[in-house]
Amino acid sequence: ATDIHLGYLEKDAIRGNDTYDTLNEILECAKTNQADFILLGGDLFHENKPSRRCLHSCITMLRKYCMGDSPIHFNILSDQRVNFNTTQFPWVNYQDENLNISIPVFSVHGNHDDPTGAEGLCALDLLSASGLINHFGHSQSVESIEISPILMQKGNTKLALYGLGSIPDERLYRMFVNNKVTMLRPKEDQDKWFNLFTIHQNRSKHGPTNYIPEQFLDDFLDLVVWGHEHECLITPTRNEQQLFYVTQPGSSVATSLSPGEAAKKHIGLLKVKGHKMNMQKIPLKTVRQFFIQDVVLADYEDLFTPDTPQVTKKVEDLCYAKVTEMLEQAERERLGCPLTPEKPLIRLRVDYSGGFETFSTSRFSQKFVDRVANPKDIIHFLRRREAMDQQDTQVEDLVKQYFEAAEQKGQLSLLTEQGMGKAIQEFVDKDEKDAIQELITYQLEKTQRHLQARGVTTEQDIDAEVREDSKKNTTEEDNEIREAMNRAKAHRLERGDDSVDAGISDEFADVNMDSDEGSVPFPAPTRGRGRGGRGRGGRGRGRGELS
Amino acid sequence: ATDIHLGYLEKDAIRGNDTYDTLNEILECAKTNQADFILLGGDLFHENKPSRRCLHSCITMLRKYCMGDSPIHFNILSDQRVNFNTTQFPWVNYQDENLNISIPVFSVHGNHDDPTGAEGLCALDLLSASGLINHFGHSQSVESIEISPILMQKGNTKLALYGLGSIPDERLYRMFVNNKVTMLRPKEDQDKWFNLFTIHQNRSKHGPTNYIPEQFLDDFLDLVVWGHEHECLITPTRNEQQLFYVTQPGSSVATSLSPGEAAKKHIGLLKVKGHKMNMQKIPLKTVRQFFIQDVVLADYEDLFTPDTPQVTKKVEDLCYAKVTEMLEQAERERLGCPLTPEKPLIRLRVDYSGGFETFSTSRFSQKFVDRVANPKDIIHFLRRREAMDQQDTQVEDLVKQYFEAAEQKGQLSLLTEQGMGKAIQEFVDKDEKDAIQELITYQLEKTQRHLQARGVTTEQDIDAEVREDSKKNTTEEDNEIREAMNRAKAHRLERGDDSVDAGISDEFADVNMDSDEGSVPFPAPTRGRGRGGRGRGGRGRGRGELS
Repeated sequence: ATDIHLGYLEKDAIRGNDTYDTLNEILECAKTNQADFILLGGDLFHENKPSRRCLHSCITMLRKYCMGDSPIHFNILSDQRVNFNTTQFPWVNYQDENLNISIPVFSVHGNHDDPTGAEGLCALDLLSASGLINHFGHSQSVESIEISPILMQKGNTKLALYGLGSIPDERLYRMFVNNKVTMLRPKEDQDKWFNLFTIHQNRSKHGPTNYIPEQFLDDFLDLVVWGHEHECLITPTRNEQQLFYVTQPGSSVATSLSPGEAAKKHIGLLKVKGHKMNMQKIPLKTVRQFFIQDVVLADYEDLFTPDTPQVTKKVEDLCYAKVTEMLEQAERERLGCPLTPEKPLIRLRVDYSGGFETFSTSRFSQKFVDRVANPKDIIHFLRRREAMDQQDTQVEDLVKQYFEAAEQKGQLSLLTEQGMGKAIQEFVDKDEKDAIQELITYQLEKTQRHLQARGVTTEQDIDAEVREDSKKNTTEEDNEIREAMNRAKAHRLERGDDSVDAGISDEFADVNMDSDEGSVPFPAPTRGRGRGGRGRGGRGRGRGELS
Repeated sequence: ATDIHLGYLEKDAIRGNDTYDTLNEILECAKTNQADFILLGGDLFHENKPSRRCLHSCITMLRKYCMGDSPIHFNILSDQRVNFNTTQFPWVNYQDENLNISIPVFSVHGNHDDPTGAEGLCALDLLSASGLINHFGHSQSVESIEISPILMQKGNTKLALYGLGSIPDERLYRMFVNNKVTMLRPKEDQDKWFNLFTIHQNRSKHGPTNYIPEQFLDDFLDLVVWGHEHECLITPTRNEQQLFYVTQPGSSVATSLSPGEAAKKHIGLLKVKGHKMNMQKIPLKTVRQFFIQDVVLADYEDLFTPDTPQVTKKVEDLCYAKVTEMLEQAERERLGCPLTPEKPLIRLRVDYSGGFETFSTSRFSQKFVDRVANPKDIIHFLRRREAMDQQDTQVEDLVKQYFEAAEQKGQLSLLTEQGMGKAIQEFVDKDEKDAIQELITYQLEKTQRHLQARGVTTEQDIDAEVREDSKKNTTEEDNEIREAMNRAKAHRLERGDDSVDAGISDEFADVNMDSDEGSVPFPAPTRGRGRGGRGRGGRGRGRGELS
């Protein structure tokens, strides 16, 4: 499995338990199927710093399902100190004499739960220090990467498990190009090994170097388990050039309301014997249904045109009918699935270009508040692209004006307009929830240090200090902001937000600031035709939703 | 042990490892002495949300020292589902068949690592979910408390271990007064049990109801292990009224530069046999030395008066000599103690009342930057109390003026003046590091929700929204601020900041905004005379440093 995104929307009254229920299902499934081990392709956690509830739940589930008396039937032949290098316990958890492990979990980290801080620790490392998982594929160097496989043997089957935790795509791309990525192989009996590689990167092209082409990967591999991409394309597909297979399990939760996420979610039960493998797709029962449909208003000439009296009402009625239809379909499909949450996710993308007007989505939402899991954002209005690049910086500009006006009035703000603008932009983009907070904390702490250090006691002093402060620290601050912006941009790029990615044209653009949307070419497929829509945008295989 | 405050100042270049080294020492000590179990009196963590490094280190040390093959020699006879009620594994960790525990740790939570959030989980619960500790004494009700002991037996010795995690003192005081606190006792052989109670509350009186009088505790107890108070008073003292003993281990790290923290730090090896007990004091070797001295300038009439030429230089020279003297003493005492950190903590409290002036502490600090662990705050200038109450709200008032001025100029701020003022006040008080951040996050998220929900796109709109917002939410916000203020006040009170605690007079007051200082009656004892100074303030036993 991959991209479980534990904790995603955990505070949502309706969807708050979704990721927890699904992790539970996945672990239970592994237990029921007596899996030798669980392999996770990254982003087990949605937040880099998971909440206490999130960690507590995860620990509890792992302890419940992965500890016990079932014997482990495979051996590890490689140097475990090299394989497991992020804790003071550099060995696989099931060989720890103080832990009774029934199902070892092996996981690389994703971009959401990547290592941070001076210690280079990630949330997974709390679990591995506790002995609950085995975090592997963590490269300590940023210059070059040597991937040393975990060599496993069960009976006569030998599995070399390679892994690489998430690295910014462009950096990894460069390293591949410069021959800085090496996959080590056992010296003896090289042909006897089934070589499995777990990676968490862009698989689809988001820019010239902002993905990892499959061709970069060694051709001695047998199977690549590709994380990060959220669309379930779990059936292994053959790369005819490299002669290996790629399986893309996809996320187990929809973190955006885009077509790729509407594909039915699965995990896989992979069986390997010698060089043969079989991947059994296992549909997840606890995943909330998600239906998406597109409506192009201009296609309904027989019903209305922009000039039709009360056209907006008619448009709204059409949308109401479409949503109702999806809800009925959802209900039919959910029959006999007691584990599936009652309320589905529904998205109707409405292309209103050609002179139509939008209607009030809040009033529309009210009609479905009891039946849909995402009542507030069912409708998504789109238009053909119109000067999208301008919109991208709109909020930032507004904030800038706002602060400039304040400055002219003689009002000094604790927060610089530049920093604030960028921070709000990132906040709007939603991928950088911490940006504002980090910036403000940084600014205020800086100010506070001054106040304390200089014994500031009068209003004038505070004013002067802040004024001086805002002059002095521009370089440092600029760097911090630039870095934050780069992070935010990288997030947007990896989300597939084409408005930033000038390299890939897209004839449609979002009008709403609905940022959890990857702008997949439109019109897009409805559920069950997950791959059909991609052709139109002219993109290759692997174009999916990611996060 | 108690009040280990793991993670305190972990980012400090000099002191950053102190708490980690000392936890390591404590655990090692338990192992060396083959302790049956480790009992912690709360505040294992300094932060309610410990950093990743902090959790990772703690997990690593617990796994290293508390797991292993040493057999456990005692049994638990009580209902463990009642004793351990915070995880899905309601049993003592050493009886878990999947964990090999050599030293079980039992801990109540403190005020620093207390449960929060809808789930009522605290950082300890991550450890207990992992099976690394046994969190007990967590009362789920706020109405009444029933403390059900962990009943242990080793040979013929029966130990009833009662525990109560930190609760706001005033609330717990009220519950005691209203007979809402019940300590359950085994029905049979009541006299055979050694009754030990672990509590984490104010022991010294910080206000009429802002502490827990020993007299409130049941007289069937044999020993009370009192956490929260930082001064090491570990030798059990007898309460002649209740006929039980109280041991106050004190913190294992100085979290303030006040006299109580200068007492040598110890942990205790408690041996219980039948009704007999013995407490062996074990000095901690890894604790950074801390020396504190007081200088009253008016006492040096033979050397100088405020009118002496270059008197400030002479004062500085005197202080220099005093600090040097303390440094020499520190070095002598550190001889032969390789585990003790090189640089000591030094505090010189200078009473400059009577017309003297202060000198530049930053220049002074420079002289000791290589020899003292806290060069920046060696000197602490004091004066006899002069309208201290005014000073207490000074910063808040200034910020208020600042924002009011802004308001008059037509400048609207995203942050209300009231909220900001309170938040900064709390920030200055340092006990509420999160206050500003929380407030701002709250305000910005609120604003952001409006912006998104209403599709705000113009500067005027933002302005209007913010204006409207600041009107509407005053009640909600007021409540939040009031709550935050109460928290901050409680912190100040428990710190012993008399400027807030009008009930206890103190003839001296701090002038600096050095908030890590508990204003213990002055003049105060130097190291080794930890209890001597308390008499002057007219306070009872147990007056110590706490955090």
